[in-house]
Amino acid sequence: MMIKFHETHIEMAHGAGGKASRRLVEGLIAPHLMPETLLLEDAASLAFSGQLVFTSDSFVVKPLRFPGGSIGDLAVNGTVNDLAVSGAEPLALMISLIIEEGLESVVLEHELRAMAQAASKAGVKILGGDTKVVEHGKADGLYISSAGIGRYQENLKLSMERVAPGDKIILSGPIGNHGITILLARGELDLSANLVSDTRSVWPFVKVLAETVPQGLKWMRDPTRGGVASVLNELARDSALGIELEEERIPVHPAVRGACEILGLDPLHIANEGQFLAVVSALEADKALAGLQALAGTEEAQMIGQITEAHSKTVVAKTLYGGARVVDMLVGDPLPRIC
Amino acid sequence: MMIKFHETHIEMAHGAGGKASRRLVEGLIAPHLMPETLLLEDAASLAFSGQLVFTSDSFVVKPLRFPGGSIGDLAVNGTVNDLAVSGAEPLALMISLIIEEGLESVVLEHELRAMAQAASKAGVKILGGDTKVVEHGKADGLYISSAGIGRYQENLKLSMERVAPGDKIILSGPIGNHGITILLARGELDLSANLVSDTRSVWPFVKVLAETVPQGLKWMRDPTRGGVASVLNELARDSALGIELEEERIPVHPAVRGACEILGLDPLHIANEGQFLAVVSALEADKALAGLQALAGTEEAQMIGQITEAHSKTVVAKTLYGGARVVDMLVGDPLPRIC
Repeated sequence: MMIKFHETHIEMAHGAGGKASRRLVEGLIAPHLMPETLLLEDAASLAFSGQLVFTSDSFVVKPLRFPGGSIGDLAVNGTVNDLAVSGAEPLALMISLIIEEGLESVVLEHELRAMAQAASKAGVKILGGDTKVVEHGKADGLYISSAGIGRYQENLKLSMERVAPGDKIILSGPIGNHGITILLARGELDLSANLVSDTRSVWPFVKVLAETVPQGLKWMRDPTRGGVASVLNELARDSALGIELEEERIPVHPAVRGACEILGLDPLHIANEGQFLAVVSALEADKALAGLQALAGTEEAQMIGQITEAHSKTVVAKTLYGGARVVDMLVGDPLPRIC
Repeated sequence: MMIKFHETHIEMAHGAGGKASRRLVEGLIAPHLMPETLLLEDAASLAFSGQLVFTSDSFVVKPLRFPGGSIGDLAVNGTVNDLAVSGAEPLALMISLIIEEGLESVVLEHELRAMAQAASKAGVKILGGDTKVVEHGKADGLYISSAGIGRYQENLKLSMERVAPGDKIILSGPIGNHGITILLARGELDLSANLVSDTRSVWPFVKVLAETVPQGLKWMRDPTRGGVASVLNELARDSALGIELEEERIPVHPAVRGACEILGLDPLHIANEGQFLAVVSALEADKALAGLQALAGTEEAQMIGQITEAHSKTVVAKTLYGGARVVDMLVGDPLPRIC
């Protein structure tokens, strides 16, 4: 017997655990997220042996939809990417929804469909989840938390401790597309650009990189909030090494560069949702880069800099004109609720 | 070098991924949740072999603190209990915070401490997490999502398919304490009572039950939102069996009974955060019950009813006066944001 969900808006009762909750879950959520079982279980069970990687993330992006994606895409891809850059093949997700009373059911349905499609594309299963509803004015449409588990690739030895002077830093592609897309989608600026979010699973690219240079690959991270600058500053600080970037090698879409110039922002601080940074030994860096550049989706990958013994705990960018500047972490929050 | 977090309120920048985020995470969140590593990692890795159980849940309880606990307790115990009633020993959690701009840091700190203490008491490790901040008026202080993993106890064979007519239903203790405590804590009613939430990990009790009657134990569930009535209705519906409750055997605190009478609520619909229901074969039910009653914390456990072939998909309560009534699922939401 198929339950149909006919309500046009989400009400408090849909979060109360009774009949209305069942209608929502069995009539709308499960058919999208778990078409095979049609059950949204509290917990799911699976056989596993090996090194397990476990992660979770919440998503509060505003607006819910933007060119190139939506909060549902981020909720899947963001968690998948946390697993991927940890060196793990993403396996399964659990999805928790916090819904604002009054949300149109079609808006929720759009995000359920987005999550299902993103999960299918990323090769992960959604195993279950949870739904809460809060009063109108106590959320902003929809917040999503997603937790993920993955299998660590045992041929890898990712560790910040292996990072050493001379290692090269590879970036998978152009930066800032996600953050600037969100900013423009809010319509608060009198700017428009032919730009879309880069939200996607990076696992296919990470997988090839891991197979190409399993020994040389030492560290990875996805430069989301805070951008490339914040991630590399954390690496420099935590490893007590220096980082030297060659600014002209960092791929930046002209629309991102233009918006950043107008707004006084640094593309290195802008969030990405489909890129990653990798530290690779000097010996294998060319091979790693060539491997990525040969893939559809990371053709624009670049070697953007290196690890140095000098200027410990500091990221320095050599500029186009031969100068050098210190690249600091993001200060303040010029772009709130980017993911 | 220890970072100290001195800000009195949470601001948008604390969720932006830059310097302020690091201060919050390294100066406040990690010292409480992960005192050993002092790092709140995006993802955590652990060796695992066996049957893995994976769950996640969001918590939006209002108010944040109430007699007997707080949202931090629920976030740990709720996820731990989802694992426990799935037959899994809870192992580790990931915690995601959605914080409303302007939240007092001391309020956040109270919840971090509550989570750390609840996790320690429940014997689970918090491995990492994520922090987002939304504008004032876009949340209600603090929402928490927690994801958990556990190890399925391989001597168990929990499955709704094993539930059969004649099986007994055991309840771990008095019902409704959590829901009514929250209702009273809101101060919307001119009632007060010497009542506290039952929030706790049920794993120690489940563990003993599983060791006492590994073969006879067939199914478990924690009656949270929607209460005992909703959980048993789901069991009846999904198994196509009937359920017969002996109403006088169901333990209900006088204050819960009194509040329910005044409000026209049924204690069977009220949420619990530290109880569980178990279906046990008739042959082993007495042994199971005696095992629970011998434990500090489940002394009030009762055999409250049985599975029947008759009245398929329906829960019927035999009343004190020899009559019988149909116990339906919760309809509507008399107690919003209970967890």
